[in-house]
Amino acid sequence: MSSSYGESLRLTIFGQSHSPAIGMVLEGIPAGETIDFGELQRFLDRRAPGRNGYSTARREADVPEFLSGLVGNVTCGAPLAAILRNADTRPGDYAAFASVPRPGHADYTAEIKYGGYQDRGGGGHFSGRLTAPLCIAGGVCRQLLAREGIEVAARILSIAGIRDRGDFTAPVGEKPFPVVDDACGEAMQAAVAAAKAEGDSVGGVIECVVRGLPAGLGDPMFDGMENRIAAIAFGIPAVKGIEFGAGFAAASMRGSEHNDAYEIRGGAVHAKTNRAGGILGGITNGEPLVFRLAIKPTPSIAAGQQSVDLEKMEETALSVPGRHDPCIVPRAVPVAEAAAAIAVADALLARRKEKR
Amino acid sequence: MSSSYGESLRLTIFGQSHSPAIGMVLEGIPAGETIDFGELQRFLDRRAPGRNGYSTARREADVPEFLSGLVGNVTCGAPLAAILRNADTRPGDYAAFASVPRPGHADYTAEIKYGGYQDRGGGGHFSGRLTAPLCIAGGVCRQLLAREGIEVAARILSIAGIRDRGDFTAPVGEKPFPVVDDACGEAMQAAVAAAKAEGDSVGGVIECVVRGLPAGLGDPMFDGMENRIAAIAFGIPAVKGIEFGAGFAAASMRGSEHNDAYEIRGGAVHAKTNRAGGILGGITNGEPLVFRLAIKPTPSIAAGQQSVDLEKMEETALSVPGRHDPCIVPRAVPVAEAAAAIAVADALLARRKEKR
Amino acid sequence: MSSSYGESLRLTIFGQSHSPAIGMVLEGIPAGETIDFGELQRFLDRRAPGRNGYSTARREADVPEFLSGLVGNVTCGAPLAAILRNADTRPGDYAAFASVPRPGHADYTAEIKYGGYQDRGGGGHFSGRLTAPLCIAGGVCRQLLAREGIEVAARILSIAGIRDRGDFTAPVGEKPFPVVDDACGEAMQAAVAAAKAEGDSVGGVIECVVRGLPAGLGDPMFDGMENRIAAIAFGIPAVKGIEFGAGFAAASMRGSEHNDAYEIRGGAVHAKTNRAGGILGGITNGEPLVFRLAIKPTPSIAAGQQSVDLEKMEETALSVPGRHDPCIVPRAVPVAEAAAAIAVADALLARRKEKR
Amino acid sequence: MSSSYGESLRLTIFGQSHSPAIGMVLEGIPAGETIDFGELQRFLDRRAPGRNGYSTARREADVPEFLSGLVGNVTCGAPLAAILRNADTRPGDYAAFASVPRPGHADYTAEIKYGGYQDRGGGGHFSGRLTAPLCIAGGVCRQLLAREGIEVAARILSIAGIRDRGDFTAPVGEKPFPVVDDACGEAMQAAVAAAKAEGDSVGGVIECVVRGLPAGLGDPMFDGMENRIAAIAFGIPAVKGIEFGAGFAAASMRGSEHNDAYEIRGGAVHAKTNRAGGILGGITNGEPLVFRLAIKPTPSIAAGQQSVDLEKMEETALSVPGRHDPCIVPRAVPVAEAAAAIAVADALLARRKEKR
Repeated sequence: MSSSYGESLRLTIFGQSHSPAIGMVLEGIPAGETIDFGELQRFLDRRAPGRNGYSTARREADVPEFLSGLVGNVTCGAPLAAILRNADTRPGDYAAFASVPRPGHADYTAEIKYGGYQDRGGGGHFSGRLTAPLCIAGGVCRQLLAREGIEVAARILSIAGIRDRGDFTAPVGEKPFPVVDDACGEAMQAAVAAAKAEGDSVGGVIECVVRGLPAGLGDPMFDGMENRIAAIAFGIPAVKGIEFGAGFAAASMRGSEHNDAYEIRGGAVHAKTNRAGGILGGITNGEPLVFRLAIKPTPSIAAGQQSVDLEKMEETALSVPGRHDPCIVPRAVPVAEAAAAIAVADALLARRKEKR
Repeated sequence: MSSSYGESLRLTIFGQSHSPAIGMVLEGIPAGETIDFGELQRFLDRRAPGRNGYSTARREADVPEFLSGLVGNVTCGAPLAAILRNADTRPGDYAAFASVPRPGHADYTAEIKYGGYQDRGGGGHFSGRLTAPLCIAGGVCRQLLAREGIEVAARILSIAGIRDRGDFTAPVGEKPFPVVDDACGEAMQAAVAAAKAEGDSVGGVIECVVRGLPAGLGDPMFDGMENRIAAIAFGIPAVKGIEFGAGFAAASMRGSEHNDAYEIRGGAVHAKTNRAGGILGGITNGEPLVFRLAIKPTPSIAAGQQSVDLEKMEETALSVPGRHDPCIVPRAVPVAEAAAAIAVADALLARRKEKR
Repeated sequence: MSSSYGESLRLTIFGQSHSPAIGMVLEGIPAGETIDFGELQRFLDRRAPGRNGYSTARREADVPEFLSGLVGNVTCGAPLAAILRNADTRPGDYAAFASVPRPGHADYTAEIKYGGYQDRGGGGHFSGRLTAPLCIAGGVCRQLLAREGIEVAARILSIAGIRDRGDFTAPVGEKPFPVVDDACGEAMQAAVAAAKAEGDSVGGVIECVVRGLPAGLGDPMFDGMENRIAAIAFGIPAVKGIEFGAGFAAASMRGSEHNDAYEIRGGAVHAKTNRAGGILGGITNGEPLVFRLAIKPTPSIAAGQQSVDLEKMEETALSVPGRHDPCIVPRAVPVAEAAAAIAVADALLARRKEKR
Repeated sequence: MSSSYGESLRLTIFGQSHSPAIGMVLEGIPAGETIDFGELQRFLDRRAPGRNGYSTARREADVPEFLSGLVGNVTCGAPLAAILRNADTRPGDYAAFASVPRPGHADYTAEIKYGGYQDRGGGGHFSGRLTAPLCIAGGVCRQLLAREGIEVAARILSIAGIRDRGDFTAPVGEKPFPVVDDACGEAMQAAVAAAKAEGDSVGGVIECVVRGLPAGLGDPMFDGMENRIAAIAFGIPAVKGIEFGAGFAAASMRGSEHNDAYEIRGGAVHAKTNRAGGILGGITNGEPLVFRLAIKPTPSIAAGQQSVDLEKMEETALSVPGRHDPCIVPRAVPVAEAAAAIAVADALLARRKEKR
């Protein structure tokens, strides 16, 4: 299948970059949950394009229209559906790529999979634009989690190899450039500008932390929190890796270094360290859940590349003009939060059925 | 839920480390597929414990009994079910841990989740022993894939920070220590022995490559090949990270470096490089599918650790005797292959419904 | 959950009777399928209200807007999404019922389930209006099936105990009153008019036949064609029973009467009779698939009824004015076809994965 | 797929009539539920064959072996798995039917679906024997429901057109012939004996009632209680129809007759009548949930029938000797209870996630 996610919540995303609209349906949100539309909009605006030098010039109002699932601003138990109109479409921009797949994009794989029937405009269903409805769902779930004392926060951990410094203890999502240490952020922005000037692009790493989680969320084997978060996070275009807690660094550690000892703190059991990233056996242990996403550099670059004309079956040069982010990492920060919020809210609802 | 995986194939795994048996049910395997039991056993033997110095001394025959789904050795369309008896159980080994959770294990999270009703013996349903039925399912899928010209092969890429050298172009799974460069393998084994001597353990990285895949497998958004493989791979205990193609290294690359240019080779479209790891937009492009798993160090270590007695609510020292692998990476190599084979076979069957 | 259906196709329906819009998302339709919008509209018009004396006076244009999943009128592989705006809403009509549940409706059960947060207007998500998006999905599936030589046709078998006569060998859906024998249809309409004159309503039975099916669709146990069709058919409000082939009459037959003998006809194996309704062991045998739905009388009646004021907790009299069909059976005929078409198209796609 | 059912509970059934074993895996049962093995066995014994004149002479001990999911007799949160060995297999009995499908059985449809690879012995995965693991799961769910004050009880409503008399207010499942009025039961048994004497078989109707249900279980559209129960009930071989409450009789009623008025009784809201069968809008209203299943006559009859030799492609006569029930209705009574118990327990667990 394709575009559904979740067990107790079920999210379905639809739309193409240049279809009349994109949107989402979210089933399973309990009745009686209030949606703060202002807060939701502020969250969506963090992802919106066209706000600064490092993002695409394409502008979309991105104000969701809720079609169902609400009475006023309170959920009524019916599926929640919302859409965003695609106002600023320029399908003509993509005519040239009809038969010449752009390297690093899904053009070639979509051509094979859909036998030439795919929507080529702007990446079609593979467009980063589809993360906007993901953020609608995620923004709703964030509010539901906040009411349970759960906070989801992400930051840029690195761009172009330049790493943020400082402990990530408080949310930075409202900053124009979401890092802990703004000096590092400036260096990252300089690296983005340099790449852009050369018609090139850069990637980075996002770190996401979920605080306030109860212990006991998630299930063994294929429905652990790691499986659940990975299964949605790889739905964000350009994600090529995910790690939890110490992650790949754990592979070089000894058990005595990696194991988190238990202690009693404030009358409760806690881990003294958090190399597990808050998850053991797929299940939360009450410590902050920590994961990181590897984001590849934007594949659309002005610099010349080699591709193949699929109709003529001959090699050809290609340059991708259009409107593209030289680095999508900053805009992907709220998307990572959205994905985490959905996965966690789903697990939280699933957890309820185990308790009387 | 917990222990089911898949769309066109559906795998369900059951059992605890010390329950009467563990097993699997695999639905959706088409009728008419032959199972070579000898080959399956050789595959399972690669995971079996007790074969050398770096694995647990627990011995299990691990010869599966197929209960259903076959006529002779040919699938009949009904669900395939197989079990392994747990012969060599020593639940007494674990009595001491009833109220003192072992750091790095699921003891504490299981206690919270199941309210004290969990099976504490040997990790219960969280035990690495549950990868044995995963390998039964994976071994069956490998045979199905082989008939379609698809080969799944994994190797140890690193242990304790010591990295294998050489290109991974041919399977090494039949080697006693599955690396490309045996000299590297010897250094790794020395590192394992050193850790063991100190009552400690080490982790590592496994690399898995799937060759011979057709382009067009996988779906956009939440059912991409990355999502599908991650969703099963995190079902392997001790996996804390996964990356595809260049993975986390991509985060430091420029687009011009990371994009795989297309060329015509042998009359067909190919990528000149494979930084995408064979996947674009979640869909295979016909190049080898490449992923790597971060495996944490075995949490069971003889060296002393700090934990908490949950009944007395006081801190206490803990040492884990039992029979444990100082490094599970070698035995996890076939498990990684099994997980990949199941995910790929599932996607391959799902792909058929799109074609007339 | 609630509002999703299917295995290889996945249908999600959203909306409430008086929400801004209602709609559907259909995932899994292969790319390259053409949609004939004119034919689709004619199909939807068969369900549309306000066309004659036996249906509600509420008028909705019911022209779907497709939001995604198409390039022109051809499916592109992305999820197909379509909406219908709710233009003619009169939520005021329902204010009186806020605390007095209407007998035969879901008012009381929704009140309990959603704790007072449900959308009370017009039945909310429980409204018969939600069958409109079901018909969009069904209309698309009908076209897909027609290209495979499969025809789905339903008729009114009885209303108010008056039974249609004649063999149901050709579709009657285009008739204003879809019965085989128009004289019977006139008697049924007279019964509807008589009930309406008394402020009452009537129910009936719909018979649906699917011809041209290949043998081999459906799966054993819980995914047989009977399970699949029942699981969607009970999603049509007012359906209280379903039977296949001889159905309840089979319970009074002997095996020698009920078994369908095999014969060779036209060089192929056929059943001589069709008491099985085209299904054995949950799997199609190539004969017409036949099922019947029991439709209860419209619960909204002008005649006085007894209910309870849930706020005052006292019994009270109730009469339901509003705009309601005295008999929904005629409008439910295309809905039954839609449900069958979706179930059959889903099984047809699932079947493909079993074949090489 | 085939053999899985459920949302919050997930049941997977495996096995063939003559495979080494048959069994079930039940995921999602909360930890801490006690299983009374004696009571479970008494429940299974009600389904067991070979106990009297109207059932097959095949004898199976049918004592389940639990493989996992328990610590002692208490669920531990891991999937519950249990098997039954197939001791008394006589595959030779079926050799004659290899190429001549038995009318009324799944032989022909399985042949087409599985291309000749199906397990022909005793109906393979289509055998009524597969209802034994369904009863293991159902028996466990019955105990879980009983602790919540929910009782599931079924009776024979009719056999061969002879109808039980009397109100079904107390369980009759422990009776050797589960009817309310034993005189009616004797007439039914005489009809079975008469059919058997003529080498023929008879069908019947089973009525099942679930008492003590809270209002609010089930979901709108495709996950209503009717959809959920129908989806599992058609997994019982020989079921050809299902109806809820007044069911097919409702089709001939007027709204004023069919609607259940509300009243206040014992300080609570109740329906005065129960034509809805305890379900409105797919959701329980707190009244007894009532459904009826149409069971076709046993297709295996000694009397001669016409079939086709699929290899020779010629018509041929057929008589089915073997060991078969002339009427499976009595043994299907606990199976109906099992199906209902599983569906209701699943809905009950799903309901919890809606509540804080």
